[in-house]
Formats: sequence, structure tokens, C-alpha cells
Amino acid sequence: MYSYIYRHRVRYRECDPMGIVYHTHYLDYFEAARTEALRAMGLAYKTVEARGLFMPVIDLALEYKRPAYYDDLLEIDTHFDTVPRVRVPIGYEVRRAGEADLLVKGHVTLCFFDRERGQPIGAPAAIRALFERAMNGTGGGE
Amino acid sequence: MYSYIYRHRVRYRECDPMGIVYHTHYLDYFEAARTEALRAMGLAYKTVEARGLFMPVIDLALEYKRPAYYDDLLEIDTHFDTVPRVRVPIGYEVRRAGEADLLVKGHVTLCFFDRERGQPIGAPAAIRALFERAMNGTGGGE
Amino acid sequence: MYSYIYRHRVRYRECDPMGIVYHTHYLDYFEAARTEALRAMGLAYKTVEARGLFMPVIDLALEYKRPAYYDDLLEIDTHFDTVPRVRVPIGYEVRRAGEADLLVKGHVTLCFFDRERGQPIGAPAAIRALFERAMNGTGGGE
Amino acid sequence: MYSYIYRHRVRYRECDPMGIVYHTHYLDYFEAARTEALRAMGLAYKTVEARGLFMPVIDLALEYKRPAYYDDLLEIDTHFDTVPRVRVPIGYEVRRAGEADLLVKGHVTLCFFDRERGQPIGAPAAIRALFERAMNGTGGGE
Repeated sequence: MYSYIYRHRVRYRECDPMGIVYHTHYLDYFEAARTEALRAMGLAYKTVEARGLFMPVIDLALEYKRPAYYDDLLEIDTHFDTVPRVRVPIGYEVRRAGEADLLVKGHVTLCFFDRERGQPIGAPAAIRALFERAMNGTGGGE
Repeated sequence: MYSYIYRHRVRYRECDPMGIVYHTHYLDYFEAARTEALRAMGLAYKTVEARGLFMPVIDLALEYKRPAYYDDLLEIDTHFDTVPRVRVPIGYEVRRAGEADLLVKGHVTLCFFDRERGQPIGAPAAIRALFERAMNGTGGGE
Repeated sequence: MYSYIYRHRVRYRECDPMGIVYHTHYLDYFEAARTEALRAMGLAYKTVEARGLFMPVIDLALEYKRPAYYDDLLEIDTHFDTVPRVRVPIGYEVRRAGEADLLVKGHVTLCFFDRERGQPIGAPAAIRALFERAMNGTGGGE
Repeated sequence: MYSYIYRHRVRYRECDPMGIVYHTHYLDYFEAARTEALRAMGLAYKTVEARGLFMPVIDLALEYKRPAYYDDLLEIDTHFDTVPRVRVPIGYEVRRAGEADLLVKGHVTLCFFDRERGQPIGAPAAIRALFERAMNGTGGGE
């Protein structure tokens, strides 16, 4: 498993009249979290698109257990459990920094999609290699 | 079952560099769709909050099957399968107006939450009655 | 002058902990309003891009005079005062449906931008003609 | 003058089919920037609301000079030119980190608003004192 913690400060525009984070914004946090998690393993998503690939979202699910409030500092624990073949399943757990209570839990599945051919393809070998290294804890990055 | 069709025109701000609707915006469409579905059965969400209740989202899931594009006119088919007790599960199917292909499918579960007591409560009888009437197809509204 | 009224129902996700529409969302309403105003004069923005043109925003300004609340039905009065040459200035006034009080007032300026050449260009003659007809009140549409 | 640099990484969800940051998102960056600028001078906005005050936006203006792209690291230079009395005018300049070209320039004006009385009020003395210290460059913080 490879995991990465992304931190986000809750903004006013993200909170609703109940005074809590409106439920859709967690998906925005997840996008930022997986982008930084991938960058940390050596894969800038920008370079994925530069190779003619997209990584669209194909499914997702969330469970909201406790609310987050304005100005909370959140930790989004982002984890990749397997080296991807076609699908890239990513799990997320959200907590307030320094607290144990789980606020939100979810997963988002991406796939690799070839822009030219207009269809999903398997993960390129170079990308699989980055995942393998990250999961073996031998780092990544260059 | 009670179902309701909500129409939405895709806006530029909702589309991403792939030229398709960014995945989170379907949840915005779902909020508008369920609000109008509930209004059509005689329940303005505004009056729910005026009674001291909230209806927060407790879980959701989506599957993305085909993309929607800028300026598409979408139909969000919103359906309630049961009269709610504590949870209010709502299903959604998104298609282009006049087309059969399913683009996105999902559900969002709400609950009734008592603001004063700070805890979930059962659906008030008056609200259950509105759902019953709507599901019996005897209309609603006044 | 050509003017067009666009209606929008305020959504929960657009309201903040003050219980009012968060200030940025008026710009979302303005996008929808100008898109429908242009469509009503015979110009679908989608066809503008299909010709190799973009219409990016180059400046904007807003004044917030009174708040709008959850579930308000708003009218966005969208007006074009001149046939555009390079810049397309568009004015907006937001009121609650059926009320005289001005809530928000603003303008957004677009320009015509040639994607190939990577620079602003003058409004194409066919587009100027649509504006002229709309401003003469002789309608538009095909 | 007191100024503060806030950094933001452009996210996919913020970019439109032109491949650039959609114009409204700069206002989201400005909210985060002024929040952190105020926190750095010793004023957490959360404590402002805890005193029964709001700081709504009363006007704003932006000029878009050059586009920002996906994954750009932006610097939002946030500056306060005067100690506020009733209005709090805040200026912003956006550049790519390490580059001189101005991308976007704008201002947003807030005011102090008393929730109980339902009207604007002058800046509280304690808040004016924090601005004075920040502008004299003697720091802030506790």
C-alpha cells in the first residue's frame, strides 16, 4: 500500500447554512489529494495528459460520518492498495488534523483512457513501475 | 415509487479540459433535482429547516458511464422508492434529453436531523404523508 | 439595447454560513444568463467555438447591495448596450422575481479570441449582424 | 501597507475547455489569500464571527491579463493599503511563482456588519490595532 496525507484548510465558500462543509467539496479535496499523492510518487498528472492519456473518474462513493466546520484543518489520508492495471482505485479518509475521529470515508476510481483511440487502455509500464516503487516504500520522485 | 424529471443545461464552468462535465457537478444537479422533486410533492425544503430540521447527506455513490458535453440539455430522473423512516434514499439517472443512453447513475441518502437535540430523528408524520400521497400517484402540492 | 431576463432558483450549495448566496455564485448566474441571452438572439456559444473562436472574460465588476437567500427565485436582467467590435460588454442586474429592489449589479466584458492565431480579433460580421437585429428588436433565432 | 503572498496550485476542476483557469476561481483564491493574510496579522476570521460580526463582500473588480493553466503554482499577492474604518479594501495580484508577468489583478471590498443590529458598523478598535501593527511591520500574531 502507498499512502499520502494531504492537508486542507476549510474555506468559507465551502460551508453551507448548516455551518458545515457542503458534501460535494470533499470530492474537490480528493482531487487535490490524489494529485499530490501521485506527484510525490513521481507522477505529475500533467505529464499523463502530455502523453495523450486522460484519467477520468469512473465511479466513486462517500460516507459522511461527522461534519467538518469552517477553518478546520483537515487531513485527507489517500491510499493506493494495488498497482493499477486498467482501473486505479483510490481510498480516502478525512480527519481533523491531530484527531482520531473519522469524518468522511470514500473511494474514487479512475481509469487510463487513450485520447486518440477514444477508449480505456491498460496502465503504461512506466506508470506501473512508479506505483511498484512507491508501494515498496523505495520512494520515487525524480 | 415517485419519480421526477429535472432538466439542466450544461454550463461552461462545469466542463473541464477534457471538454466534458467534471464529475463533481452531477452532485450539484442532484441537489437541484431532489429539491424540485420534493417541491412537486408539496415539500419545500425551506419549510423543513423552518421546523428546526436539517436533511444532511449521509452517503452517496455514482457511476460514470458516458460523458456529457458543454451545452448538453440533461434530464435527471430522480426517484424515491420508499416512504422514508429515518433515511431518505434517492436514486438518480442522467441522460441527454430525448436519448436512451444512460450517462450517469447514482444515489444520495439524506436523513432527518433535529437541530435542537443534535441527532437524527424519524421522518415527521406530515412529511411521511406527503411521500405516501406522491407514491400513490394522487399528486401533492398544496 | 438588447435585454433578456434569466431566472435562477438559489440552491443550498450556493449559500454560506451567513445564510446568504456566497458572492462568487452571481458570476455563475451571469454565465448562464448571457448564454441564454445570446441563444435567444440566434447565437449558440457552442457554434462560436466550432468556428475556432473563444470568448474569454477580460474584466468584470460587481456591487452587492442586498443579500439573496436560499430558495429565492432570482431574475438576472442581462443587457447588451452596443453591437460589439472587439470587446463585448454585458451588464447585469439581479432582483428577486416580482420585486423592485436591486440586489446585485455588475458587468462582465468578453472579447473574441482566435484560437489558431492566439490573439483577439474583431467580432465576425455574421455575429455583428445578429446583434444588430436583436438591438433593432427584429428578433433573431435561426 | 501590509502585504502577504498566498500560494495556490491550480486544480483540474478549476480549468475549463479552453484549458485555462475559469475566471470565477480567482475569487476563491482571493478568499483563501485574505483569510491567511488576516491570520498572519493575528486575526482569525472565525473569531470575528464569534464576536457577532460578519464581513460580507460589498464590491469587487477583476482584470484578466494572461491565462493560468492546469497545475500552475500561483502566487496571490494580497495587500491592505489602509487601516480599515468601515470598509476593508483588499488588493490582489496573481502571478506564476517566480515569474514577473501579471496574470490577474483585482480588488475585493469587505465591510464589518453587526449581526444583532443588522447593519454595518465601524471596525472594532482591537481589529484596527492589529492592522496598525501589521502596517508598521511590527508583526502580529498573538
